[in-house]
Amino acid sequence: MKRINIGLLGLGNIGTGAYKVLEMNRTHIEKTTGLDLRITKILEIDTERDRGFTVPPGVFTQDAESIFADSDIDIVIELLGGLEPASSFMHSALKAGKSVVTANKAAIAENFELLTEAAEESGAKLRYEASVGGGIPLIGAITEHLCANEFTELHGILNGTTNYILTKMTEEGRPYDEVLKEAQELGFAEADPTADVEGYDVANKLSILMSLVFGKRIRPDEIPTIGISKLTKTDLDEAEADGCVIKLLASAFRTPDGKCECFVQPSRLNKTHPLADVRNEFNALFLTGNAVDSLMLYGKGAGPFPTASAVLGDVIAIAKILK
Amino acid sequence: MKRINIGLLGLGNIGTGAYKVLEMNRTHIEKTTGLDLRITKILEIDTERDRGFTVPPGVFTQDAESIFADSDIDIVIELLGGLEPASSFMHSALKAGKSVVTANKAAIAENFELLTEAAEESGAKLRYEASVGGGIPLIGAITEHLCANEFTELHGILNGTTNYILTKMTEEGRPYDEVLKEAQELGFAEADPTADVEGYDVANKLSILMSLVFGKRIRPDEIPTIGISKLTKTDLDEAEADGCVIKLLASAFRTPDGKCECFVQPSRLNKTHPLADVRNEFNALFLTGNAVDSLMLYGKGAGPFPTASAVLGDVIAIAKILK
Repeated sequence: MKRINIGLLGLGNIGTGAYKVLEMNRTHIEKTTGLDLRITKILEIDTERDRGFTVPPGVFTQDAESIFADSDIDIVIELLGGLEPASSFMHSALKAGKSVVTANKAAIAENFELLTEAAEESGAKLRYEASVGGGIPLIGAITEHLCANEFTELHGILNGTTNYILTKMTEEGRPYDEVLKEAQELGFAEADPTADVEGYDVANKLSILMSLVFGKRIRPDEIPTIGISKLTKTDLDEAEADGCVIKLLASAFRTPDGKCECFVQPSRLNKTHPLADVRNEFNALFLTGNAVDSLMLYGKGAGPFPTASAVLGDVIAIAKILK
Repeated sequence: MKRINIGLLGLGNIGTGAYKVLEMNRTHIEKTTGLDLRITKILEIDTERDRGFTVPPGVFTQDAESIFADSDIDIVIELLGGLEPASSFMHSALKAGKSVVTANKAAIAENFELLTEAAEESGAKLRYEASVGGGIPLIGAITEHLCANEFTELHGILNGTTNYILTKMTEEGRPYDEVLKEAQELGFAEADPTADVEGYDVANKLSILMSLVFGKRIRPDEIPTIGISKLTKTDLDEAEADGCVIKLLASAFRTPDGKCECFVQPSRLNKTHPLADVRNEFNALFLTGNAVDSLMLYGKGAGPFPTASAVLGDVIAIAKILK
């Protein structure tokens, strides 16, 4: 059995999910991969919270540098979220030769060159499957299995909060404000929902996809972005009358002259389109390549366990080629 | 640039598609992967047929052993289809240390142990993404990106011919025989449609998925299999009256006592189920894991170009780690 030591940055909701899934499926992972994955250090201030498991003594630390300097640690998982200190921590880890796995779309979208170049320079790996589409293996499909394709077009439903709100508005005929309030009460929307409802979260994810699908670097704030907060029942009713639904789409395509255009906006979809049936908090990416034709990948785009699925998939991919 | 020499077995419809996609996307593949993929030998009797491109002199051969003995060849692509001689050729290639990529579901399902063990013994790689779901990266998702999950359930629409027939029967209210005849005329069904309409093709694919998803080896002829040839308009109308559609499903699940059950049969799906909207020749796999929750992968399950997408994705994955 190959032992891999992991430093985990952040034991909030997502970090706790990763820890739990690793323990829940430890036997399965050991049996199928031959890997003994061990979280040996956790960067976290809140060491007292009841998370449903006991972290062994000496694992918690409040000193990030001690993780990057620990010669026994092979992989760093970054699950702090937000731009800083997450970006600086990943950069330090990569420079120290630690491979990094993250779910952090904001940090990857904003600091794509900085982080990918740091990985190239040190030879460490940087993987971020969970950053777009949560548990859906979008990035692996695009960068590995479909890499013989030139892609022509993509359309994604990449934010569960807004898709939940739009589904309820469409199917129950209720107004935006009322459904948003319900989503907040149910935990599907945050107290400050701006990043979700104004499309900024989707713009981060589309920025990452543009690099991978079209080889085009575009920063999130350069992507024309319209959210759903101005949508009215009338807009949805008019779409319905035309046989359509409205979804918040991340869209990108190659123009006939070879350029790549992209934007985030509420868009009409004919009800026969596969994306039209993506309901509630589910996410999906619809992608067209010049060999594979049209493809859709659908699943849970967020949540501790789906995110853990992607994070641990990345950890295992790196662990297999380590040493 | 890393040069990889390929021996191609079979230049029929699927082989021709792989050749064309490689030429069409050569520049893209070279730029994004740094790989110079060259088909240097092709096993094929029909050297005269007009395929729309010219095979360079000396590339055609009718001697399979000369390919396996060629020390310059790194990867063998098997696109002959059928059990034999495809299985024996793959076995010989693997024993000779050549990595093998295939789209051949019958050969992989029937000779799973023989071929995977030959690969393990020689250290060569064996990949078969195109064998299930054509261009949809199902196998990569299951074995790599989702490998931290224990899977509990799968349902797949894995045969385009039968899904095309069922879609037409359902949506146009036409009888089985008439739609089958039309599908044969359009090239969606073969002259002898038995393997498709009786579910044997799906049983091959389910056999492969059982090994990968549940670690359970079951031969195709051990899988309880019912096709669509006995389905009547009344069956479909009754389903419709209950808010359901009928699809030919490959299904498998883990029972509470830890066993794995599987079967192929026409099955009712509530119209709200994501698989219910998979129409015409499209395929999809709906999969549930204990971390990722429910996931669906959807796309073209057959055809020369979608198959080429998967085959070349496998070739590139192997080429990246060669030498």
